[in-house]
Amino acid sequence: MTSPTAGARPDEVRRHNRTALLRRLHVDGPSTRASLAAELGLNRSTIKALVDGLAETGVVAERVPAQRSGAGRPSLLVLPQPHAAVVLAIDIRVEQVAMAMVGLGGEIIGRDSWNLHTRTRDPREVITHIVDSAKLLTDELDLQPVAVGVSVSGVVRRSDGWVHEAPNLHWTNVALGERLSAVMGLPVQVGNDAELGALAEHVRGAARGASDMVYISADVGVGGGVISNGMPLRGTGGYVGELGHMVVRPGGLRCYCGCEGCWETEVGEAALCRALALPENASRGAVVAELRSLAADPDSVMHRLGEFTEWLAVGLVTVVNMLGPELVVLGDLFTALPEPVVAEVRAVVQRRSLVSRAVGGTRIVSSPLGRDAKLVGAAEAAFEPVLGIV
Amino acid sequence: MTSPTAGARPDEVRRHNRTALLRRLHVDGPSTRASLAAELGLNRSTIKALVDGLAETGVVAERVPAQRSGAGRPSLLVLPQPHAAVVLAIDIRVEQVAMAMVGLGGEIIGRDSWNLHTRTRDPREVITHIVDSAKLLTDELDLQPVAVGVSVSGVVRRSDGWVHEAPNLHWTNVALGERLSAVMGLPVQVGNDAELGALAEHVRGAARGASDMVYISADVGVGGGVISNGMPLRGTGGYVGELGHMVVRPGGLRCYCGCEGCWETEVGEAALCRALALPENASRGAVVAELRSLAADPDSVMHRLGEFTEWLAVGLVTVVNMLGPELVVLGDLFTALPEPVVAEVRAVVQRRSLVSRAVGGTRIVSSPLGRDAKLVGAAEAAFEPVLGIV
Repeated sequence: MTSPTAGARPDEVRRHNRTALLRRLHVDGPSTRASLAAELGLNRSTIKALVDGLAETGVVAERVPAQRSGAGRPSLLVLPQPHAAVVLAIDIRVEQVAMAMVGLGGEIIGRDSWNLHTRTRDPREVITHIVDSAKLLTDELDLQPVAVGVSVSGVVRRSDGWVHEAPNLHWTNVALGERLSAVMGLPVQVGNDAELGALAEHVRGAARGASDMVYISADVGVGGGVISNGMPLRGTGGYVGELGHMVVRPGGLRCYCGCEGCWETEVGEAALCRALALPENASRGAVVAELRSLAADPDSVMHRLGEFTEWLAVGLVTVVNMLGPELVVLGDLFTALPEPVVAEVRAVVQRRSLVSRAVGGTRIVSSPLGRDAKLVGAAEAAFEPVLGIV
Repeated sequence: MTSPTAGARPDEVRRHNRTALLRRLHVDGPSTRASLAAELGLNRSTIKALVDGLAETGVVAERVPAQRSGAGRPSLLVLPQPHAAVVLAIDIRVEQVAMAMVGLGGEIIGRDSWNLHTRTRDPREVITHIVDSAKLLTDELDLQPVAVGVSVSGVVRRSDGWVHEAPNLHWTNVALGERLSAVMGLPVQVGNDAELGALAEHVRGAARGASDMVYISADVGVGGGVISNGMPLRGTGGYVGELGHMVVRPGGLRCYCGCEGCWETEVGEAALCRALALPENASRGAVVAELRSLAADPDSVMHRLGEFTEWLAVGLVTVVNMLGPELVVLGDLFTALPEPVVAEVRAVVQRRSLVSRAVGGTRIVSSPLGRDAKLVGAAEAAFEPVLGIV
C-alpha cells in the first residue's frame, strides 16, 4: 500500500510513471535512460516505452552522450525540450513587475519587466499591462504558454489566487487568480512571493534535497516561505505565515499591519536605507551600490550595519527556534549584504539558538537565485499541474 | 490511487479497515454499526465481520442501544473495551512526574504522581522511580500496559526519544526512549510536552476537527506544539520548534538558552510570580490560588497583570503571524489566567495580527484538558502504533 502504483489500472500506472519521469527531467536536467531507470526504480523496457512516447510528441529528444561510461553500448541521453511546454511566470513586486517565459527544464526563454509607480499600481492597470506584455512576449518568441504562475508580495490564498491584502502594493481583496485566468484563458497559480521563493530554492537553488528550510524574502517588505518535511508550510485556508510581521522590537517603528517593531520595519528596505544613511525612497540600484561599496571596506561594515545586523539576527534566532530548519536561505535584497553581516548573523544564531544547537547547526546561506527566485518559483508553481498532462 | 486500500491484498485491506475502525472507536467512543459503516464508507457486512472479530478477542463489546432511532431493528452499539489495550502515560515535568494507565477509548484507569526536587531530578533517579511506580500501579490495577508514552519538557528527537536538552530539568543528552524501553521491555514513544499537548487537544480537546492549530504549553517553561494540515509540525531531525524561545523583548531578562527576553522569561511561571508579587519559587498551588483570588476582583486584574498580558499577547501575535492557525489553545498554567487577561489577549491578536485578519480571525481558547493534556498526549502517542496491532 506504500507504492502509489500498487494495484492501479495500467493506464494510471503509465501516466504516473510518465509524470515522474518528466518531473525528473524537468528538475534535474538531461539524464541517461540507464540512470532514469535506476532512479525511478523502473525497468529499461518501461523507460524505453515512456521515452519513445515522449520523443514522438517532441517533449524529449535523445542523443548519444559525449562521454561514454564503461564498456558496451552507451545508454542514450534523454533531454527535455524547453519549447515542448512553456509557462509564463510573473513576479509582481512593489516597484516592478518581472515576467519570463520558462521552458520545460527550467530554462528562461524570454523576459520582460517594467516599473510600477503609484499611478500604475492599481490592480486593473497591472493586470492590463501583464496581458499586453504577455502578448508581445509570446508573439516575439512565437511560443504560447500552457499555464501561468504569479508571485505577489502579499497575503495570498493559494487555492484560488485571492489576494487578501498586499499592503506595500496597497491592494486589498483582489481576485487576481480568477481575473487573470479569465482574461488569458489559461490556468493560473498565484502564490505569496516568499512561498514561491522557497519553492524555487527547494527545486533549483540552495535548498535542493533539504526537507526543512526557510527562505527569507527581502524586497520592500520582508517575508518568509517555509518548506517543512518536503512540503510548503501553510496556515489555515491556505494562507502562508508572514514572518516579516513577527514583532522583534516592541515599541519600535509603527508598521501598517497594526504592530510596532515588526521584523519588516527593522530590516526591510527602508530600515536598510536608514542604516546606510540613504533617503528612504532611494532606488534599489542605489541601495545595492552602497552595499557593494561597503563590502569593499570591511572595517566600516559593522560600524554602519551593526544595529541592522543585530535585528536581522534576533529575527532569525526566533525563526530557527520556532521552526527548526536545517537551512535558512537569505533571498533577494539580502543577497547583497556584505559577507561580514552574514557571518555575524550565522555566529549569533549558532550562539543563541537552542534549536539550532539541537539540530546540529542550522546553515545560513545567500540565495544563489537572487532576484530571480520568485520568478523561478512562479514558473515551478505553474509547471506543477502541467507535468501531469504534457 | 488515492484510496489507501486500492489494489492491496485482502489481508492488508482487512487490517487497514480494522485499524480505521478501532481508531474511530478509540477516539470518538461508542458508536452504532450503522454509523461506523457510514463514516468509514464500508458496507454493513464488512463492519459485521470486523466487529465480530474484535468482539471475539474482547477488544469491543456490543449492546442494544438505550435509545432507538427510527423504526426497524436497532443497530447494535459497539463499545471499545478499555482493558483490552492499556498504555502507560508519563508526564515528566520540572517539579513533578505524573503517570497514568490509559485504556482503549482514552479512559484513565489509574494514576500516580510524585514531586521532583533537585536531588531526585537526575535522569537515572527519575527512570528508576518511573519503573518502580509503574510496577506498583500495574500490580494494583492488575493490568499490563502494551506500550509507553512519555512527555518531557525539553528538546526531544521524536524518532528515538533522545532528549537533547531539557534545561529546566538540567538534563542534557539523555537516551530516555532507549533506556526506558530496555528496562521496561515495551515500545516507548517520547515527545516534547508541547507537541504532545497539541496532540491531546487535537484528538480529545479543544482542537478536534481543527487542521491548523497551536497549543501553548505553560509549566515552569513555555513551549508550543503545532498541528499543521492535520499533522504535527516538526523541524529537521524530528525536533519540534521551541516557541518559548522566540525573542519578544530584546534586552529583557537573560534566558538559559543564550538569548535575552525570550517569551518564556517574560510569561513563564517565574514571570507570573513576579507579576503577582509572589516569590519566584512559590508553589504551583500558591500561584493558582492567587490567580483565582484575582479573578474574583476583576478591577485589579489588568492593574496587576497588564504588563504580563501585553507580553503574552505580543508573543501570540508573532505565533499567529508566522503560522496562521485557525485556533490557539492556551494550556496548563495559562488555563488559570483570569478571563479579562484572555479577553485582552484575544482583542490584541485580532487588532494587530495581519494573518489573523486574513484567515477570518484566529480563535484563542483555554485548554479543556488543563493539566492532563500532556498525559493524554503521551497516551495517544503510545496508542498510535498499538491500534494497528491490537
